[in-house]
Amino acid sequence: MIQGIGAAAGVAIGKAFVLPNWEWSLPDTQVNPVDLAKEFERLYEGIRTSKDEIEFIKKEFREVVGPEESSIFDAHLAILDDPVFMSEIRGIIERQYKAAEVAVKEAIDHFVAMFDLLDDEYMKERAVDIKDVGNRLLKHLLGAPEVTLPSDTQPYILVAKELSPSQLAHLNPAYVLGIVTMMGGKTSHSSIMARALGIPLVAGLENKILTPIQTGDMLVLDGETGAVMLHPDESTLRDFTSRRAKQQRKREQLELLATVEAVTKDGVSLRLAGNISSVKELNMALKYGAEGVGLFRTEFLYMDRSSFPTEDEQFEVYKLVAEKVGKETVVIRTLDIGGDKHLDYFQLPEEQNPFLGYRAIRISLDRKDMFKTQIAAILRASHYGNVRMMFPMISSVEEVQAAKAVLNEVKNELDSRGIPYNREMKVGIMIEVPAAVMIADLLAEEVDFFSIGTNDLVQYVLAVDRMNEQIAHMYHPYHPGVLRMIRMTVDAAHSVGIDVSVCGEMAADERSLPLWLELGIGVLSMSPQALLKVKHRTLNTLASEAREIAKVCFRNRTSTETEEQLSAYVGRSGFTLGGGGDSKEKTS
Amino acid sequence: MIQGIGAAAGVAIGKAFVLPNWEWSLPDTQVNPVDLAKEFERLYEGIRTSKDEIEFIKKEFREVVGPEESSIFDAHLAILDDPVFMSEIRGIIERQYKAAEVAVKEAIDHFVAMFDLLDDEYMKERAVDIKDVGNRLLKHLLGAPEVTLPSDTQPYILVAKELSPSQLAHLNPAYVLGIVTMMGGKTSHSSIMARALGIPLVAGLENKILTPIQTGDMLVLDGETGAVMLHPDESTLRDFTSRRAKQQRKREQLELLATVEAVTKDGVSLRLAGNISSVKELNMALKYGAEGVGLFRTEFLYMDRSSFPTEDEQFEVYKLVAEKVGKETVVIRTLDIGGDKHLDYFQLPEEQNPFLGYRAIRISLDRKDMFKTQIAAILRASHYGNVRMMFPMISSVEEVQAAKAVLNEVKNELDSRGIPYNREMKVGIMIEVPAAVMIADLLAEEVDFFSIGTNDLVQYVLAVDRMNEQIAHMYHPYHPGVLRMIRMTVDAAHSVGIDVSVCGEMAADERSLPLWLELGIGVLSMSPQALLKVKHRTLNTLASEAREIAKVCFRNRTSTETEEQLSAYVGRSGFTLGGGGDSKEKTS
Repeated sequence: MIQGIGAAAGVAIGKAFVLPNWEWSLPDTQVNPVDLAKEFERLYEGIRTSKDEIEFIKKEFREVVGPEESSIFDAHLAILDDPVFMSEIRGIIERQYKAAEVAVKEAIDHFVAMFDLLDDEYMKERAVDIKDVGNRLLKHLLGAPEVTLPSDTQPYILVAKELSPSQLAHLNPAYVLGIVTMMGGKTSHSSIMARALGIPLVAGLENKILTPIQTGDMLVLDGETGAVMLHPDESTLRDFTSRRAKQQRKREQLELLATVEAVTKDGVSLRLAGNISSVKELNMALKYGAEGVGLFRTEFLYMDRSSFPTEDEQFEVYKLVAEKVGKETVVIRTLDIGGDKHLDYFQLPEEQNPFLGYRAIRISLDRKDMFKTQIAAILRASHYGNVRMMFPMISSVEEVQAAKAVLNEVKNELDSRGIPYNREMKVGIMIEVPAAVMIADLLAEEVDFFSIGTNDLVQYVLAVDRMNEQIAHMYHPYHPGVLRMIRMTVDAAHSVGIDVSVCGEMAADERSLPLWLELGIGVLSMSPQALLKVKHRTLNTLASEAREIAKVCFRNRTSTETEEQLSAYVGRSGFTLGGGGDSKEKTS
Repeated sequence: MIQGIGAAAGVAIGKAFVLPNWEWSLPDTQVNPVDLAKEFERLYEGIRTSKDEIEFIKKEFREVVGPEESSIFDAHLAILDDPVFMSEIRGIIERQYKAAEVAVKEAIDHFVAMFDLLDDEYMKERAVDIKDVGNRLLKHLLGAPEVTLPSDTQPYILVAKELSPSQLAHLNPAYVLGIVTMMGGKTSHSSIMARALGIPLVAGLENKILTPIQTGDMLVLDGETGAVMLHPDESTLRDFTSRRAKQQRKREQLELLATVEAVTKDGVSLRLAGNISSVKELNMALKYGAEGVGLFRTEFLYMDRSSFPTEDEQFEVYKLVAEKVGKETVVIRTLDIGGDKHLDYFQLPEEQNPFLGYRAIRISLDRKDMFKTQIAAILRASHYGNVRMMFPMISSVEEVQAAKAVLNEVKNELDSRGIPYNREMKVGIMIEVPAAVMIADLLAEEVDFFSIGTNDLVQYVLAVDRMNEQIAHMYHPYHPGVLRMIRMTVDAAHSVGIDVSVCGEMAADERSLPLWLELGIGVLSMSPQALLKVKHRTLNTLASEAREIAKVCFRNRTSTETEEQLSAYVGRSGFTLGGGGDSKEKTS
């Protein structure tokens, strides 16, 4: 038994398919000076093809895995536009008369060596990206076939030195039982993606494995514990088979809960809604029993395009979602770009601290035409279902008033166009900036509902960027300051009688349930994958008992105490669900 | 009368000195291939000389203007280390056999053109930096004399197309009455520096001035209104002379206040302390009547070096400061690097959002040796004056406890070394992270005092990076959420009877005085330049009246109302002080 790093939960049993290493054969002839122009044309053609291909993979990936993970490909596209990288390649062709593929190879080697030298995690990641993009470009220049994965064989366990994001994007989860990589760890791109795809993955086996694995070798792996065995004996095979069966049973049990109502043992009902970015995700949410959509992130409508979507284009999507959801509510959040989300056709300023920068409602209020187009589309959809509208990143009363003034303008315009919409459409705001919590009482008088976005809120309250690995251990949703802010928000909402729900990642963490029960929050919105797990927890919880636990938590002085007590409570009450539940949303 | 942009307040009357444009004469001979090595040697020598020179200017500048402004030069040093820029230069020498100066010139032109093309403010600033550094390097390669400013003549008004940071660094404020630039605006480097140096500056005159100004021409300018007149007539000259005299009188009146106690008209005393970064700044603070030091930023001790300062080196500085301040308190803040502050010899990770990243106490607790060295030096200095120690960026009870545990370790070590220190030295924390405000009651039980750092606090509460020009208008210290957080902090401190002071930029804003009086904050710490202005305001304030204004402000729903009411109150009660008071601190 070899001990690797368990990077994506799940058990796999099957035969290995070992991904061969890529090898290039580069032309060593010089380019005739009169053919330079032709060589440049080949280079540009290769870049165009590579870009198209990346755009395609990115789109495919977003549909399957989600918008967050697919943003990796933006970095790849940016490299193909990078003036320094490109001028290096052109320089080599033009001054040394080398073939385009040789120039690309030399430029890759040069930049990768440079970034590797810097001995900095971020730069090393960039080196991997450059290598990945450069290899794609090389492939198109050389016309070399990509190493394809067997798709007509039996399902297999994929074994590789390391997997690039584009290789992963081509995986068919139906054929890949599990993955073993020699390099990488829990936070590498391939691990994040494997978790999102639900494929068990064990990483970091280099130096631990003695005989190299061959295609066809029998393998078992447990992506939770990190255990891998080559040529497993009879008893190991039995053990892993039973682990896999147990996992499968749990999953089936959970799936039975889709149509069950979320009620605690002592009769407290919760409404569990879905966070979605696309119609595909809506379908998944509905399959897992989502009661409406608590957060429709509209960013994806704006991505993968060359210009802003029109009112009609947006309207069609919003209407479709509203109709599919039926009588339940759909909360549509207006555009939240900036921060780590960008649009190709809308240039945002370079920022030192984009999370503290120009984003979301700040942009919408500046770009009134764009904002009005979106509001009009949402209003029109309100005629076809139970639609609500929500503004992100609100930090002051003035902002809400300004946004509402735009809403009224659009209503008047729709009136004069004679287009029907729900005049009473409810309007709410995300509570995710600390300032909004501090003036929640003032904001509550301006809107119909609050939705607490715990991801950004925790980030700002603690001044911890959770994407920053150096301080990720300081990102504590159970920090007493965070809990007090959530309570302040809920109290402000309840005191004027407006709705308040939670749509950040805390809502998907089953351990938080006692907190919501104690605060009297009745609606939780989360990624579709988390719905059944949280429902299962709800069904196994005694609200009266959970509230007592929560009371203690609200008095704790440290996040550690609260986390321990909530985890222990989950451990005590009913079985825990392993396997596949590890995938997390990264933003709300 | 020509109307430019008033970028640094003050009136100037005098003769113009027009800075000639730089012109290069570059060698056009090719380098003999056998001499390539020699050419590289010349290049490296030029880089070394340039770096030494920049380090020197940076140091000089920090002493005069402050650590924030001097950080501009770090960008310059980074360019000379930039692998892409340098490989471009080397490539031109090596492949085209051009002389080092020609290669530098071509590389500058290439990068400047590239950055200019991007049509992005940030990139344009980088282009200016590259031009500035490149020109310095060229100067050393060509051995060309720098255009020097007349220093043995009468004082003059400097006229230039634009001034680079290094040109400004060479200015002798004693000889420069004022500055007129054709380019630039309020936020350009030269304007920020001129404000810090107290030199009146009018920018942005291009296309507005018809006859070019000649050296020797008579000029008047008002850096507050932006008015400039070439060849002023008799009456204009009289007008500007009287404006200048009035300004001068105000300054003298203010300087008389240095030894006066800060007491309101109805007898409420305040203690006005100084924020300092160096002994030079301490001297200025004491000259302006500072009652002790409310914030000693120790970062500067760590800068301009190749390794961490030793315990003895730090001790000598802390001791000197403590002794100079005498019986008043000196609050020494432990190292606050990260964010926008870096050390050459301490590699920090590349971060997407450095303000939400690895900084201050987060680094100190990770680098215990470094932390212990600093604490030991502070403890030893406590034997020689009224020294307090303060931890920055505290966000949890655990962090305070961890920091105090290190303090106790160091105390034990000093005991066993037999070194005297004040066993009762008071220990406090900065309140600048929203989480710290939310648990101020818990933190108050752990420490002896709070100091509210409004700069970072406002930034985090509103999620607005104030260095980001795109959203600078959203940085509102008078946001009701900020005011409530300040009140929460003060209430928590007062309820257990610990000291609480304010050391962010709000303390230096005379308009805030009613807030402090209403909250019962008795100590304000600010940049030395602001001390007399705030004292003047205190002497002209009736606390009972100010408190009534503040009560209204604390009930306001928007920052605009509060800002208007506080500004109006300052306008009503006593004269406002113009001129030279515009310089702001950028961080606390």
